[in-house]
Order: sequence, then structure tokens, then C-alpha cells
Amino acid sequence: MSVIDEVLSANEQFAKSFKYGGLAMPPKRRLAVLACMDARLAVNQALGLQPGDAHVIRNAGGIVTEDAVRSLVISHYLLGTQEFMIVNHTDCGMLTFKDEDLRGRLERETGIPAITPSAFHAFPDVEENVRKQLARLRAHPWIPRSIGVRGFIYNVVTGRLGEVKAAKTLHA
Amino acid sequence: MSVIDEVLSANEQFAKSFKYGGLAMPPKRRLAVLACMDARLAVNQALGLQPGDAHVIRNAGGIVTEDAVRSLVISHYLLGTQEFMIVNHTDCGMLTFKDEDLRGRLERETGIPAITPSAFHAFPDVEENVRKQLARLRAHPWIPRSIGVRGFIYNVVTGRLGEVKAAKTLHA
Repeated sequence: MSVIDEVLSANEQFAKSFKYGGLAMPPKRRLAVLACMDARLAVNQALGLQPGDAHVIRNAGGIVTEDAVRSLVISHYLLGTQEFMIVNHTDCGMLTFKDEDLRGRLERETGIPAITPSAFHAFPDVEENVRKQLARLRAHPWIPRSIGVRGFIYNVVTGRLGEVKAAKTLHA
Repeated sequence: MSVIDEVLSANEQFAKSFKYGGLAMPPKRRLAVLACMDARLAVNQALGLQPGDAHVIRNAGGIVTEDAVRSLVISHYLLGTQEFMIVNHTDCGMLTFKDEDLRGRLERETGIPAITPSAFHAFPDVEENVRKQLARLRAHPWIPRSIGVRGFIYNVVTGRLGEVKAAKTLHA
């Protein structure tokens, strides 16, 4: 049995006692979270979010990519979210490699060079990465200034969120 | 008090009884899920996943964008996942607009035309969208043929996952 078949059995049990069938499409708490895809980070549980509360956008690293901006623009303009959280975490896989090494490996193993994705967004420092993503999001001309944007690092050993303040030089 | 401050209070409570501090970085069940960001879709809960089990990648629509491929490539090559699930859902916000209308609105409201994101990936039919994303992912030269890739629609009224089979014409 594949893992996906196990997941389908678990979903059948979940559906038997399902109690969220009456929720509306717009997130009730007007929040959107952009987080890393890491398996240890259970976003809803760690943030105290219930089904229907918030949009959750996730990618490798919790990076403000073009695709993350796409999702956040849809979240705000079409579904009314007013606050954005960026969540990175300790012990991230993105700290363990360099873009050019992964690209080289993919090209060697598959024999196919130079296609998209054009970057992998590995980074050497989590706090610095959060600051960079905050700056990138705040600078995007389609993200209104009225939206509260804050950045955090989730500690995978303690389960605790710590806030990362934006670099002062950005406002100098 | 902002919603983010409420979330931080909830996280303090969560951390007090935290029991997942010993998990390893690679997903234990070697699964990666690509799902829509929709607030009603609580991925871990609906799929019976525990912290540490699976990578969860989410964007508006559950689309196989360049960024989703980036995350899935990192998931497989660096962290060992072997099965991928694409999860779309009923009553999706992506059914409610057209790319050109949202782009026009953004350009009017902000006065800034023609920047990225260059597409929003709205779609008129969920089942057709899942088939398209399955085909796109299976065709990517950096996604090995050995990976099991399956697509699903989550019913937001019943909590149940239904499988979408890939179009026969793709194999003709």
C-alpha cells in the first residue's frame, strides 16, 4: 500500500465526523501565512488556527517568490485578508546546500540542463532570510502599505515563534 | 490587538505542551502534498498527517508553478520524498475571476502596470485544472518517472477527497 492510499483511508475516517461543512470562502480572521514547507511545522496547530481562519501559502524556505506574491495578491484583493505573516524555522533544509550545487546535480542526473526553476533560493542564515523576504514583500507595488506584514522564526525544538524585526537600514 | 498578536498568544500555549522536538528534517512518510491555500482545507488534519510526516506546499489554486516545482525538486532530491499528491477543492476562489480582470483592477488601483506576477492561474473547472497540473508535473524533466503523482479534489462540504484520474489522451 502506498502512503497516498494510507492517506485516503485516514481521510475517510476524517470525513465521517466532519464538522466544517458550513465555512465561507473568505478567511474569517483575515490572515494569510507564508511558511516553509517543512514537515515539522504544522502551521494550523502551531499558530492556533482553525479551519476557515486563514490562508496558508507554503514553499521551500518560506520565500517571497513571484508565486507567493500571486497568492497573497489574490488573498488580499479577492478574499479580504489584511495581515500577512512570514514564517521560517530553525534547522531549515535551505541552509544545507547551494543553488549551483543542486542545479549541477539535476543536470548530471537527468541530462537536462538550464530549465526552470531558474533559482532554488537556498540561504545561509534564517534571520537574514526573513528580513530579506519582509523587505521584498513590503516593497512590492501591489501589496498595499495598509497591510500588516511581520516575520517569524519557528523553533522546531521548542515549538515557539520568535519575531524578526525588519532591518533598520530599510527605513533609513 | 491584531490577529497576529492573538496567534502569538496561541503559539505560547502550544509551545508549553510541545512534544515534537525530536523530529528529523526528512519527511518520515516520504510524501509531499501540493494543495490550494484555501482556509477551509486543513491539510494535515484532513489527510491524517502528523508533524514530521510530509512536506506541504500550498499556493492559490494548487498550481504546478515554477515555484511549486522548485519546492518539489528540493523535497525529492534533498529530503527523499517519493510520492506527490496534488489537492484542489470544490468552491475554489480561482473559479470566481479571470486573470485579465484582476490584472486590470491591480493596475487601476495601484497605478503600477505590467509587473510580476505575470499570471494568476484562475481556472473555470476544478477537475480539468487537476488534470492539467498532473500532466504538467509528470512532464517536467526534473521530476523522476519513479515518483507516484496523483491528483485529488477535496470537497469543502463533506471533507472527503475524490481522486481525479489523468486524461487518457495524455497516454495515447
